[in-house]
Amino acid sequence: MIGKALLPELWTEILVPVCAVVGIAFSLFQWYIVSCVKLTADGGASSSSSSVTEEDGKNVNGDYLIEEEEGVNDQSVVAKCAEIQTAISEGATSFLFTEYKYVGVFMVLFAAIIFLFLGSVQGFSTKSQPCTYDKTTTCKPALATALFSTISFVLGAVTSVLSGFLGMKIATYANARTTLEARRGVGKAFIVAFRSGAVMGFLLAANGLLVLYITINLFKIYYGDDWEGLFESITGYGLGGSSMALFGRVGGGIYTKAADVGADLVGKVERNIPEDDPRNPAVIADNVGDNVGDIAGMGSDLFGSYAESSCAALVVASISSFGINHDFTAMLFPLLISSVGILVCLITTLYATDISEIKAVKEIEPALKNQLIISTVIMTVGIALVSWIGLPSSFTIYNFGTQKVVKNWELFLCVAVGLWAGLIIGFVTEYYTSNAYSPVQDVADSCRTGAATNVIFGLALGYKSVIIPIFAIAVSIFVSFSFAAMYGVAVAALGMLSTIATGLAIDAYGPISDNAGGIAEMAGMSHRIRERTDALDAAGNTTAAIGKGFAIGSAALVSLALFGAFVSRAGIQTVDVLTPKVVIGLLVGAMLPYWFSAMTMKSVGSAALKMVEEVRRQFNTIPGLMEGTAKPDYATCVKISTDASIKEMIPPGCLVMLTPLIVGFFFGVETLSGVLAGSLISGVQIAISASNTGGAWDNAKKYIEAGASEHARSLGPKGSEPHKAAVIGDTIGDPLKDTSGPSLNILIKLMAVESLVFAPFFATHGGFLFRIFS
Amino acid sequence: MIGKALLPELWTEILVPVCAVVGIAFSLFQWYIVSCVKLTADGGASSSSSSVTEEDGKNVNGDYLIEEEEGVNDQSVVAKCAEIQTAISEGATSFLFTEYKYVGVFMVLFAAIIFLFLGSVQGFSTKSQPCTYDKTTTCKPALATALFSTISFVLGAVTSVLSGFLGMKIATYANARTTLEARRGVGKAFIVAFRSGAVMGFLLAANGLLVLYITINLFKIYYGDDWEGLFESITGYGLGGSSMALFGRVGGGIYTKAADVGADLVGKVERNIPEDDPRNPAVIADNVGDNVGDIAGMGSDLFGSYAESSCAALVVASISSFGINHDFTAMLFPLLISSVGILVCLITTLYATDISEIKAVKEIEPALKNQLIISTVIMTVGIALVSWIGLPSSFTIYNFGTQKVVKNWELFLCVAVGLWAGLIIGFVTEYYTSNAYSPVQDVADSCRTGAATNVIFGLALGYKSVIIPIFAIAVSIFVSFSFAAMYGVAVAALGMLSTIATGLAIDAYGPISDNAGGIAEMAGMSHRIRERTDALDAAGNTTAAIGKGFAIGSAALVSLALFGAFVSRAGIQTVDVLTPKVVIGLLVGAMLPYWFSAMTMKSVGSAALKMVEEVRRQFNTIPGLMEGTAKPDYATCVKISTDASIKEMIPPGCLVMLTPLIVGFFFGVETLSGVLAGSLISGVQIAISASNTGGAWDNAKKYIEAGASEHARSLGPKGSEPHKAAVIGDTIGDPLKDTSGPSLNILIKLMAVESLVFAPFFATHGGFLFRIFS
Repeated sequence: MIGKALLPELWTEILVPVCAVVGIAFSLFQWYIVSCVKLTADGGASSSSSSVTEEDGKNVNGDYLIEEEEGVNDQSVVAKCAEIQTAISEGATSFLFTEYKYVGVFMVLFAAIIFLFLGSVQGFSTKSQPCTYDKTTTCKPALATALFSTISFVLGAVTSVLSGFLGMKIATYANARTTLEARRGVGKAFIVAFRSGAVMGFLLAANGLLVLYITINLFKIYYGDDWEGLFESITGYGLGGSSMALFGRVGGGIYTKAADVGADLVGKVERNIPEDDPRNPAVIADNVGDNVGDIAGMGSDLFGSYAESSCAALVVASISSFGINHDFTAMLFPLLISSVGILVCLITTLYATDISEIKAVKEIEPALKNQLIISTVIMTVGIALVSWIGLPSSFTIYNFGTQKVVKNWELFLCVAVGLWAGLIIGFVTEYYTSNAYSPVQDVADSCRTGAATNVIFGLALGYKSVIIPIFAIAVSIFVSFSFAAMYGVAVAALGMLSTIATGLAIDAYGPISDNAGGIAEMAGMSHRIRERTDALDAAGNTTAAIGKGFAIGSAALVSLALFGAFVSRAGIQTVDVLTPKVVIGLLVGAMLPYWFSAMTMKSVGSAALKMVEEVRRQFNTIPGLMEGTAKPDYATCVKISTDASIKEMIPPGCLVMLTPLIVGFFFGVETLSGVLAGSLISGVQIAISASNTGGAWDNAKKYIEAGASEHARSLGPKGSEPHKAAVIGDTIGDPLKDTSGPSLNILIKLMAVESLVFAPFFATHGGFLFRIFS
Repeated sequence: MIGKALLPELWTEILVPVCAVVGIAFSLFQWYIVSCVKLTADGGASSSSSSVTEEDGKNVNGDYLIEEEEGVNDQSVVAKCAEIQTAISEGATSFLFTEYKYVGVFMVLFAAIIFLFLGSVQGFSTKSQPCTYDKTTTCKPALATALFSTISFVLGAVTSVLSGFLGMKIATYANARTTLEARRGVGKAFIVAFRSGAVMGFLLAANGLLVLYITINLFKIYYGDDWEGLFESITGYGLGGSSMALFGRVGGGIYTKAADVGADLVGKVERNIPEDDPRNPAVIADNVGDNVGDIAGMGSDLFGSYAESSCAALVVASISSFGINHDFTAMLFPLLISSVGILVCLITTLYATDISEIKAVKEIEPALKNQLIISTVIMTVGIALVSWIGLPSSFTIYNFGTQKVVKNWELFLCVAVGLWAGLIIGFVTEYYTSNAYSPVQDVADSCRTGAATNVIFGLALGYKSVIIPIFAIAVSIFVSFSFAAMYGVAVAALGMLSTIATGLAIDAYGPISDNAGGIAEMAGMSHRIRERTDALDAAGNTTAAIGKGFAIGSAALVSLALFGAFVSRAGIQTVDVLTPKVVIGLLVGAMLPYWFSAMTMKSVGSAALKMVEEVRRQFNTIPGLMEGTAKPDYATCVKISTDASIKEMIPPGCLVMLTPLIVGFFFGVETLSGVLAGSLISGVQIAISASNTGGAWDNAKKYIEAGASEHARSLGPKGSEPHKAAVIGDTIGDPLKDTSGPSLNILIKLMAVESLVFAPFFATHGGFLFRIFS
C-alpha cells in the first residue's frame, strides 16, 4: 500500500511560495546594499559599511594585499564611470529591446503553432476523452491541453525574458560600482561584484519557482483531478523558458564575440591601442556583449534547464503513483527541492558576504570555490530532509509502460548524485581551465614553439577534459535511472540545479568584474586599480568555466529526462538501436552539433567582419579620434552588433526549432528519438571540450601576462613571441567557449523539450514519409 | 521455397581464386613496368616506352604543359636519386621491422588471450555441443572455435602485415623513379606514380581475397557442415587484419607527423632552410613517414575494413538461409563481389595508364577523379551481375532473432547504395579540401586577418563537411538495414570497398608523388622538375583526403555491421536506449573518440619534441652541416621516430584493445553494445571533420603558395603575413588529418570486431559487476 508524504498539503502550499518570496526579498536586499555605493559625483563613492582601518599586508609569499585606498576623492573619475556605465546599460537595454521585438514575433508565431498542432490531435474537439495512460478515467480534451500549453509556453518565455532582463540590469548597475569600490580595496570590490551576482541568481531561481507554482495552481482550477492533462500542459513552461534561451545564448553569444573579436582585430592589432581603450569605437559594444552574452545568456540557459527539468519530473510524476493517488506534496517534490535550494543558497551567500572576508588576491578564487562546496554540503542535508518529509516512504514511478516501486531514500540518492556530480564537474573544469594547475601551464608552455603547438595542445586538453565529467554524468544517470527511471534522471538534474542561485551568483560575478576592469581603463584610473580589477577578473574566468560546466552537465541530464518524458508521452516502449529508423536517427542526431557549431562559428566570423569595417571607418573618418580629442560613435557599433547577432542567429535557430518538427512529422517518433539521443550524447562532448579549450587558452594567455611565477615570466612579457602565440589561441577560443560551445546546451535541450510538447501531435500525425512508402 | 544461386558451386570455387590470381599477376606486371625506369647511373633513366616527340603547349588559358625534357642526361642526378631512395627505403624497412618485433609479441599474447577466453566458454570441453541458433543440430566444440579463431587471427594479421610491407616496398621503389621520369614530363611521371599505386592496391585487394578464400576452404575440411562454427572462427581474420591496422595507422600516424613537425620546427622555423633540404637531419625520417603512415597505414586500415566487412557478412549469412541450406555460392557472395571488384578495377586502371594520356597539369586531378567515377559505374553493373547469378532469387536473412525474407534485387540495392555513397563521400571530401572550390579559398582568404581566423574558419569548414557524408551514410544504412538487416549493412560496406584497388591506387599515388618532390629537392634538381612534382603532389593531397573519406565511410558501415554481428552472436534481441546500462554505454562510448584523440595528438607532440631535440643537437654539434660540407646523421632521426612512435602508440592502443574486454567483462554485453554504438556515431563525425579540416588547411597553404589566381596572389607570396597564418593552420592540421582523425577508424572498427570475436565469452562470463550487486 502506498502512503502519503509526511508533509501536509497545506504546508506545501505555504512553504513553496514563502521560499520563493524570501529569495526575491533577499535578492532585492542585496540590490539595495549595492545601490549604497553612490555613483554621483557630488555624493562621492562610499559604501554603507563603516570605514575600516586597513592593514598594510604587502607581499606575503608572493601574494599581495592591495587594500590601501587609492584615488577615492577624485570626483571626475566618478562622473566618468557613471557616464560609461550609462552607455553600457543603454547599449545592453537597446540590444535586449531589439531582441524582444523578434522574440515577440517568434512567441506569437510559435504559440500559434503549438495551439494548432496540439489542437489538431483530436481535430479540435471540445469533448472530454479517455486519459492516455489510465484509460478508465476521463481527461480534459486535447484542445484544452493545446490552449493551456500555449499559455504556459508564454508564461515560461516571459519569466525567462524578465529574469534575463533584470539580471542584465543589476549587472550593468553594478559594474561601475565595483570599479569605484576597487579604489577602496580588492575585498570591497569583490563584495560588490559578488552581491550583484547574487541578485541575479536569487531573482532568477525564485522567480522561476514562483511563476511555476502559481501556474500549476491556476491550471489546477480548470483541470481539477485530471493531473495527467494538467502537467502535460505545464511542459509548455519549459519550452517557453528554453526557447528564450535560444535567443539569449545564441544571439547573445554571437553579439559578445562579434564585438570582442571586432574590437580586438582593429584596436589591438591594427591600431595598437590597449584593450578597453575609450578611443576604440567598439569598446562599449564589447562591454555590452559581456552582459548580454554571459549574464542574460547564461541566465536564460540555466533558467531553461531549471524549468525543463521541473517539467520533465512533473510530467512523469503525473502518471506515477503521485499523480494517480493525487498526493500533492509528493507531486510538488521538484518544487520543494528548489525551495529548499533557495534557503541553502541564502545561507551560503551570507558566508561570502558577511562571515568571511577577502583580504588578499589569492583568497578570491578559494572564496568562490567554497561557495560551491558549502552549498553542496548543506544542500545534501536539505535534500535528505525534503525526501523524508516530502515523499511517501514507498511509491511507484512510471517506467516506459510499467510502474516501478521506489523508496524515498532511493530518490534522495538520485537527487544527491546529481548535486555531487555537478560539484565534480565544476572542480574538473576548474582543474583544466585555471592557470593554477599544470594543464593550462603546459598549454602556456607549448606557446614557446608557436601558435600551432598552442592550438594542438589546447585542443588535446579540451578533448581530455571530457573524460571525468562524462563519467560523472554517466554515474548519475546510471544511479538515478536504475532507481527511479526517467523521474530519477529529472530529479538528478534538479539536484544539480538546486544550488542554481549560488552557481549563477559566482558565474555573473565574472562578467561584472570584467566590465569593472574595462570601466577602470576607460575612465583612465590608475594602474593599481586596474591591477585589482584584473585580479577579480582572473578568478571570474575560472568561475565562468565552472558555470559552463554546470550548464552543460545539467543540460545533459535535463535533455535525457526530457527525452524520457517525450518517449513516455509518445507511447514508445523501446528505442532499439537495432532498428534502421533509430540508428539513422542516432547518426544524424550526432551530426547536428557539428552543423550547429559550424553555423555559430561562421556567424561570429561574419558579424565580427561587419564590426571591423565600422571600426575602421570611424578611425579613418572621424578626425582627432586616435588623438583622443574626438569621441567615437559608440552607438553605431552597438547597433551593428545588435543587428548582426539577431540576423546571424536565424539559421542556427531554425536548425534547432525545425529539426524536431521535420523529423517528427516526416520520419516519426522512433527516428526522432534517435535524433534526440544522438545529439545529446554527441553534443555534450563537443560542448565540454569547446568550453574548456577556450577557457584554457584564455587563462594560458593571462598566465603569461600576469607573470606570477618563474615559468610564466620565462614565457612573457606581453608582446613576446610566446605571448603572441597565446593571443592567437585566446582569439580562437573566444567563439568556442562563448558561442558555439554553450549554444550546444540549447540545441540538445530545446530539441528535446520541443519534442516533448509536440509528442501527442507526432504520435498522431508523425512518420508521414514512411506511411507513404508502406 | 528457397532456391539455390544460379552459379554452380564449382564455378564459384574457380572464379574467386582466379580473380585473385589475376589481380596479383596484374599487380606484378605493373611493378615490372615501373622497374623499367632504370635507377642506375650507367644505364640512364629511360622508360620502356619509345620516345615521343613532345609538343610545346605552353600556357593555354592559365594552365601549362610542362612536357619538355629537362636534364635527362645528367647522370650524377640519377646516382643521387638512387642514394636517397635507398636511404628512404632502408628507413621504412627499419621502422617496419622494429614494429614487427612488437607486433610479434602482441600477436602471440593476443592469440593466447583469444584461445583462452574463447576456450573457457565451455570450460575447454572437447565435446560437440548443440548449435547456438539451430539447437536441433550439433556443432563443433567451443574449443575448436577458440583454436580456429586463433589461427584465422594470425592469418589475418600476417596478410595485413605482408600487404602493408609490399605496399611500402613498391612505394619506396617508385618514388625516385617518379622523380627521374619528371625530367621527361609531367605525364610520364604521373604514369609511374599511378602504376606504383596500382601495385599496392591490387596486391592488397587480391591477397586479402585469396587468403580469406583459402582459409575458408581449409577450415571447411574440419568443420564440414557446421557453418555456424566455421564462420564464427573466420571472424578472427577480421580481428587480425584490424589489429595490425592499429599498429599501421596509429603507430605510422605518429611516426609520420613526429618526423614532419620535428623537421619543420627546426629546419623551416629555426634554421630557415627550405622543406626537404638535404641538410636537415630529419628529412629522410620525414620522407619515410609518408610511406609508413600514408601507404602502410592506409593500406592496413582499408585491408582491415575489407576483412572485417567480409567476416561480418559471412557470420550473419551462416545463420541465414545461405548457411542453413548450405548454399556455398550464396554464402560466398561477399567474396564474389570482391572478385568482380578486382576485374572492374583492372579495366579502370587500364583507362588511366593506357587509354587516356595526361598532357597538362590541370588534367591530373580529373584523371584521378575519373578513376573513381569509371570504377563505380562499371562496378554497379558488376554487382547487378553477381547479385543475379550468385544469389537465389529469394532467401532469408537473420534479423536479431527472426528470419527476414529478402529478394536478390534488394541485396543488389544494398551493395549499390554503399558503392555510390562512397562516391558521394569522395566528391564531398574533394569539394571541401581541394583548393579549386570556394570552401578552401574562403579559408585561405581568412588568413588575411591572421592565424586565429584561419583556424576558426578551418574548424567551421571541417564541422560543415560532416553533413552530407553523414546523410550519405545514413541513407545507405537505412536502405541496407531495411532490406537485409545487418547482412545488408555488411554488404553495403563491401560495396563501398569493392573498388578498393582503384581507391588505394589513387591514394598511394599521393605520398609517392610527395616523396618524388622531396627527392628532387634533395638531389638538387632544377626548379622546373620540382614544379612538376609539386603539381603531381597537389592532386595527391586531394586524393589523400578522398581516400580518408572512403576509409571513414566504410569504417562506419563496417563497424555497424560488426556491431550487428556482435549483437547477434551475443544473443541480444534489443539494444534499448531506454535502459540505464545502454544509455551510459552510449554516453561513455561517444566520449572515447575524444579521449583517444587527446592521446594521439599529445603523442605526436611528445614524439615531435624528441625529434626537435635531436635535430638541434646535430645542427649544433656536426661542423659544416649548415654549409653542406658534412652529411647529417639521418639514421638516428629515423630511429628516434621509430622508437617514439612505437612507445607513444601504447596508451591509445591499450585504450582500444582493453575497453571492450573491460566493459564486456565487468559491465556485460548491453553496456558494451552501448559503448560500441556510441563510439561509432560520435567517432565518425570527429574523424571526418578532423581529416577535412586538416586537408583544407594544407591546401589553403598550397593555394597561397601556388598563386595560380588573382585572389591567391593577393594573399601571397611565400613569407607574407597571410602565408605565415596559413602555415600555422597547416601545422595544426597535420596531426588532425594524419594521426588522430584516421586513427579513429581503427578505434571504432577494432572495438567492434574484438567484441564480435569475444562475444561468446562475454555472453557467458560478462557483466561481472552487475552480477555482484544483484
